[in-house]
Amino acid sequence: MDLNISVELTSAKKQKPEIDQLSFGKYFTDHMFIMDYDAGKGWHDPRIIPYQPISLDPAAKVFHYGQTVFEGMKAYKTAEGRILMFRPYKNLQRLNRSNARLSIPALDENVIMEALRKLVLVDEEWIPDEQGTSLYIRPFVIATQATLGVSPSEQYHFMIILSPVGSYYAEGINPVSIFVESEYVRAVTGGVGNAKTGGNYAAGLKAQQEATDKGYSQVLWLDGVHRKYIEEVGSMNVFFKVGGKVITPALNGSILDGVTRDSVIQLLRYWDIEVEERAISINELVEAYRNGTLEEAFGTGTAAVISPIGELNWQGDKLALNEGRTGPLSAKIYDFMTGIQRGTLEDPFGWVVKL
Amino acid sequence: MDLNISVELTSAKKQKPEIDQLSFGKYFTDHMFIMDYDAGKGWHDPRIIPYQPISLDPAAKVFHYGQTVFEGMKAYKTAEGRILMFRPYKNLQRLNRSNARLSIPALDENVIMEALRKLVLVDEEWIPDEQGTSLYIRPFVIATQATLGVSPSEQYHFMIILSPVGSYYAEGINPVSIFVESEYVRAVTGGVGNAKTGGNYAAGLKAQQEATDKGYSQVLWLDGVHRKYIEEVGSMNVFFKVGGKVITPALNGSILDGVTRDSVIQLLRYWDIEVEERAISINELVEAYRNGTLEEAFGTGTAAVISPIGELNWQGDKLALNEGRTGPLSAKIYDFMTGIQRGTLEDPFGWVVKL
Repeated sequence: MDLNISVELTSAKKQKPEIDQLSFGKYFTDHMFIMDYDAGKGWHDPRIIPYQPISLDPAAKVFHYGQTVFEGMKAYKTAEGRILMFRPYKNLQRLNRSNARLSIPALDENVIMEALRKLVLVDEEWIPDEQGTSLYIRPFVIATQATLGVSPSEQYHFMIILSPVGSYYAEGINPVSIFVESEYVRAVTGGVGNAKTGGNYAAGLKAQQEATDKGYSQVLWLDGVHRKYIEEVGSMNVFFKVGGKVITPALNGSILDGVTRDSVIQLLRYWDIEVEERAISINELVEAYRNGTLEEAFGTGTAAVISPIGELNWQGDKLALNEGRTGPLSAKIYDFMTGIQRGTLEDPFGWVVKL
Repeated sequence: MDLNISVELTSAKKQKPEIDQLSFGKYFTDHMFIMDYDAGKGWHDPRIIPYQPISLDPAAKVFHYGQTVFEGMKAYKTAEGRILMFRPYKNLQRLNRSNARLSIPALDENVIMEALRKLVLVDEEWIPDEQGTSLYIRPFVIATQATLGVSPSEQYHFMIILSPVGSYYAEGINPVSIFVESEYVRAVTGGVGNAKTGGNYAAGLKAQQEATDKGYSQVLWLDGVHRKYIEEVGSMNVFFKVGGKVITPALNGSILDGVTRDSVIQLLRYWDIEVEERAISINELVEAYRNGTLEEAFGTGTAAVISPIGELNWQGDKLALNEGRTGPLSAKIYDFMTGIQRGTLEDPFGWVVKL
């Protein structure tokens, strides 16, 4: 792959939004990275250009057959002006695992890392530095070949776009209410649930919309086979503290191998807190709630880092966790993770990378 | 919805491909239909314009979260120059069912039918009239809002593009070899398997690719829960003739409610052939093969109409059906269906619509 990334700078920089106007993925920076793939030629023409619309044939496969993958990462600016990222290679490795599942040609992770570094530096002034803010990084691949046959595309775009994002918790970390979904299913073993591809998110929209209408922030997904084992919460992995021990669903092929999930597991073990990755049924959780041992629950993901769960609605029963307040372990993990990500705490794992 | 469809004709008509160069969905006509949706405004600005690329923000939700639906239909030109379509409202009703599942705002089926009629007439000279050819019609919706939050888009494009397609069977109707898939799963009840959305097709690419590498045309999908019940074949519904009776998987929420499937069921009953819609396990089929009662198998879909199955590979065992030749019932259904679709046979069902 050609490592020579060309750079065309914009002649008309955009006005940056006010910090308190930032929400998630609403504003984009002045530049983007794009690279093309053609069968027989491979990935070619890596380039940084002004952020702009892309032009595609209406028959492009992405519009019809959903052949897409993406990643989500963040860059932080420290008080001293250093730019930090969190385990970026973990995301790029997963991007290639998603590519393999979706029959998309592999990307050179070193080239992507270099593209990402170069793009973030070009748009460095867009990285917000207030507490809780960051620059969200969205690498993605779309199938662009203009034919309607159902087969892997012979042409693709790989792109990276950047979005300054505000604090997920405008007024501090707050627990969310979760609706346990028993009608709709997100994914099943043998499917694409462990790949970061558009179809998984499309499949979740309806349940999310119905949960929102009932006053809940997210849904807790159950497995598609037995309809009783916990999978994910919204688009996050999920953890429960039961009787002093932490449990989280094992990677079974239908849930995402989250980078934050993996980091939290390692962190808990570093703190000598027992963690089990295994099948967890909703009945086990309800039982633990009834006997008073279900102490805390939280989601993990790049966007929110840690999202404490204050209530679970299971078929009309409302299970209040830690009296609806953020649990002490959730808070401790959040403080540690965001601390090392922002460079205010020492990183004992070597996870944080300076750009 | 505004029924006033504006028409802008191209000033530079494209050269039409030779009939023997047509394959599936490779060439597109001179014009396309497009209409926009904005929250609060609804669907608006229906228009026929020259076929051209569309320009989208790189953050458009279709690129990230797969919020898409589509349909597939055909128009035929008879020897007398009439233009015929097959049960078009059935497809438009399904389009709206897909929309509902994908949290996409409903379309007015009468407006879409009028758009379709007008577009096909504008590009009438593109409809091939040789035996086995037709004009393939692809209506589709894509989410265009440029924000990365995982929620239903507030903006969409609805489009129709047209593609002259050749005979699916260049040398007559020929049986295909099918690999019974036991690793990958296409869809599961509670998911989006019964909606015509991109993610279902993306999820099938890998299995299809591996089957092709083994020398098979398509995969036969088994259900995601028990991993033993027949679902679909490739992107077609599937029928089996066993002991004089025809059986096909019941609509269980994870398979597509095919228009050709429904038509074949009605046709068989019209012919006094018994049809059962029910769960069919792969073991039942293998058993029927062993005792000599598995007489025929065929797929049904808009593209191929009827696709006879000559061989099933189940975990290495090769089951040859009707000695690998097209069965008499498959041939009879194919001849009838294509006959009424092309206007050479009388249509006793009122399925065929003259544009």
